[in-house]
Amino acid sequence: MPPLLPSHSAVSRVTAVIPTLTRSATTSAGTAVTPNKPPPSKDHYVHTYSPEAFPLGYSVSSTHAGIKKKSGALDLGILVSTSDTPTSAAACMTRNVFKAAPVTVTSELLRSSNGRARGFIINSGCANAVTGKKGLEDAWSMSKSTTSQLPPSDAKESDAGTLVMSTGVIGQHLPISSILEKIPGLIQTLDDSPKSWLDLSKSFMTTDTFPKLRAKTFKLGDRLVRLVGIDKGAGMIAPSMGPPQPPHATLLGVIATDAAIHPEDLQNALNYAVDRSFNNITVDGDMSTNDTILCLANGAAGSTDHQGRETAEKMKELTENENPQEFAIFKEQLREFAEELAQLVVRDGEGATKFVTICVKNAPTYEVANAVAKSVANSSLFKTAMYGEDANWGRILCAVGYTPLSPNPISPTSVSVSFLPPSSSSNTEPLRLLTNGEPEANIDEARASELLKEEDLEIEIDLGDGKEEAKVWTCDFSHEYVTINGSYRS
Amino acid sequence: MPPLLPSHSAVSRVTAVIPTLTRSATTSAGTAVTPNKPPPSKDHYVHTYSPEAFPLGYSVSSTHAGIKKKSGALDLGILVSTSDTPTSAAACMTRNVFKAAPVTVTSELLRSSNGRARGFIINSGCANAVTGKKGLEDAWSMSKSTTSQLPPSDAKESDAGTLVMSTGVIGQHLPISSILEKIPGLIQTLDDSPKSWLDLSKSFMTTDTFPKLRAKTFKLGDRLVRLVGIDKGAGMIAPSMGPPQPPHATLLGVIATDAAIHPEDLQNALNYAVDRSFNNITVDGDMSTNDTILCLANGAAGSTDHQGRETAEKMKELTENENPQEFAIFKEQLREFAEELAQLVVRDGEGATKFVTICVKNAPTYEVANAVAKSVANSSLFKTAMYGEDANWGRILCAVGYTPLSPNPISPTSVSVSFLPPSSSSNTEPLRLLTNGEPEANIDEARASELLKEEDLEIEIDLGDGKEEAKVWTCDFSHEYVTINGSYRS
Repeated sequence: MPPLLPSHSAVSRVTAVIPTLTRSATTSAGTAVTPNKPPPSKDHYVHTYSPEAFPLGYSVSSTHAGIKKKSGALDLGILVSTSDTPTSAAACMTRNVFKAAPVTVTSELLRSSNGRARGFIINSGCANAVTGKKGLEDAWSMSKSTTSQLPPSDAKESDAGTLVMSTGVIGQHLPISSILEKIPGLIQTLDDSPKSWLDLSKSFMTTDTFPKLRAKTFKLGDRLVRLVGIDKGAGMIAPSMGPPQPPHATLLGVIATDAAIHPEDLQNALNYAVDRSFNNITVDGDMSTNDTILCLANGAAGSTDHQGRETAEKMKELTENENPQEFAIFKEQLREFAEELAQLVVRDGEGATKFVTICVKNAPTYEVANAVAKSVANSSLFKTAMYGEDANWGRILCAVGYTPLSPNPISPTSVSVSFLPPSSSSNTEPLRLLTNGEPEANIDEARASELLKEEDLEIEIDLGDGKEEAKVWTCDFSHEYVTINGSYRS
Repeated sequence: MPPLLPSHSAVSRVTAVIPTLTRSATTSAGTAVTPNKPPPSKDHYVHTYSPEAFPLGYSVSSTHAGIKKKSGALDLGILVSTSDTPTSAAACMTRNVFKAAPVTVTSELLRSSNGRARGFIINSGCANAVTGKKGLEDAWSMSKSTTSQLPPSDAKESDAGTLVMSTGVIGQHLPISSILEKIPGLIQTLDDSPKSWLDLSKSFMTTDTFPKLRAKTFKLGDRLVRLVGIDKGAGMIAPSMGPPQPPHATLLGVIATDAAIHPEDLQNALNYAVDRSFNNITVDGDMSTNDTILCLANGAAGSTDHQGRETAEKMKELTENENPQEFAIFKEQLREFAEELAQLVVRDGEGATKFVTICVKNAPTYEVANAVAKSVANSSLFKTAMYGEDANWGRILCAVGYTPLSPNPISPTSVSVSFLPPSSSSNTEPLRLLTNGEPEANIDEARASELLKEEDLEIEIDLGDGKEEAKVWTCDFSHEYVTINGSYRS
């Protein structure tokens, strides 16, 4: 399929399209942006970027619409592609039977537009899930109201709409009139400053303790392209997401790039990346009704710079068929970036004090490796032991043993388990606990305790029968998790 | 198969068989037996029985073998059938790939004896799981040492051995020499007093806060028969147990009866009962390496009374084929008794403050109903909400929606959810939350809060498509759960 190639430069139009575009931050390159007080232990996960770090051709804004109870808390945000080329859009969404209204609406929008979008609107504080017909009407209103108030697009994508995401309490209706009232203001204040990006990431937050924003620049051919990613956790995290047809989402995330990628190929690349990142994290084993990862590619890269000056010819939409090498680079960069974003959610898992990597190797298939790693990662007993810094590796074995596999290819006498020390450690030897189903005679409990005091833990499970490997990332299970979730609605 | 019928009365021999049988408690019928201080809130779950309540032809004893750290804590016990008729034995054991050594040994003993046993030996404090060859040797030693020291049996069951159960930490070796040293003393002090039964139930305990002992008498034909049941939880509870061939099993339990049931039929009745009781409880979703429910039937009923006087002809071994009506009564009594014992484990779930019944009705199949109920019962978010007495029913729906079913027959628009009030409540109307996928317009939150303050909660999920029903029992997820399991080995 030939890529669509509009003939005009995009960014020079930005100030016209966005009425009151405030570009203050773009003039203060490198200014540190301070988020709303994350706890000191999490502070280093909040990264700040200079304006050049963000993809070209996107503007964002956010506000308080009264969905969250806390006065002034950001709970409504929008992102709009300002590129004059059509924006490709792809999504991976929850496989939960009870799909939230925004999941259904976003799926339909992507189908009817053949994978094109103007941008998205997101709210936090209310998931608009299990809300019946009114919920669906509300999600459509959010989308349509935003699209109708955007200035006409030069990209000539009549079907391209505004995708919708919601996160928060299930089974309650959105305060839809408050939301609709805020949309004109959001559009008025659209902007591409680092502060606005960070604020957008705050509007994703529910029980998250820090905003999750990442940016990355890499070379695609001789052209620099950029990725920006936002996501949120921090509970009901055990995603299993597939492409939206048939529609199948409260992990929410978005990755936007100024590369140009054909929609079908963008979906394929996103499926690949999500299967190896977001679908391999778990906080509590609860697969949400709202999990959604959006991916937008507006093709604004390289044609202009951050000051809106023309710098190069427009990028053509990549397809895997026509540009296998460049596509492979994009796909791998997307996977790596998705992995980084996914891990941030685990870093901020509700009540989490540990970041645990479960690596299962020498498995007969990837699926077996993945299922075993998830079985351990979801075990409450394993997770509480990690919280207690207790080298109770028997619980690891127990969870390996009850992995629901049929037929079950695991041979107990082939399984070996080790704690892996952090790469910064002076002793990089793995601490072997079990070899071929036999416990090690003299486990160095002192070293085990020392390893367990680290924030980052890594467990290696060798099934001893095959060549395949999978990694899953999880966190521990703490008193704080119970506190947070015992009174989520209060 | 014709039942084996030895010709002699059993109980008159008991004092001869058991050298120093102390029968003090049998002379103090109805005397209350005080356990080791359960918390006041759990005290009423400790039942006491008069000597007549226990099945005839069994003797028990227990001791401290130093497996548990606490000085004097009972951690080793035995039960021996003193009947001179062969004792049928059946077991349902874990399906975890890593079967603990005692599970393997018990399976082999039952296979080689065609379902006969002399009794069992149990230890708590160490699970003897994932302990390799030495673990297997230790389990065999426990069994063989006990059997070899028992007086010869009139029942002429040369192959009948002593079954083995262990519970506690995984991956550590038993202090086998301390255990073996204690066996002669255990045999010396065998006894059938209420205190000894209660002590045996204490020797099962790990994180349990109260001993779990139940007894029941019912009529089978014109004969009174008795059941005694002991079990223990309280974590790593999500059993999935099947018959021991092929061998599959830290839920431990035993049900002993003085009815006479053929071994194959006893196994069938136990499978039926366990599938509808122990396999339908969950504390934390962790299926143990050691789960075992034993069932013993020694046929001592009715031939003698508790004072050893002959009262009737010996009972013939029941089979389903030859005695369908009586067998049906036995099977249903066993199921009901197993349900009571299974619920006790949930009552004492680690850190539990709530007892929650999940009833799924109008499902297309029992398997669907059961899978949906378990999905909700295992949801950490649901369980923390119950702990917090938060009517966050969205989490119920969420867990219904991610039940792993393929194909998935659940239609979101057919699902209804209610809180059921306790039977003691003045308002017995269900509190409807969701009808056919639509949330109720004005949920009475005050009544929801009131219902959630009860210790016993019941949730009804109507799938609206079918006739099948399943019940699953679970508890909430509390701070105390995390405390208990964060430092289990310390």
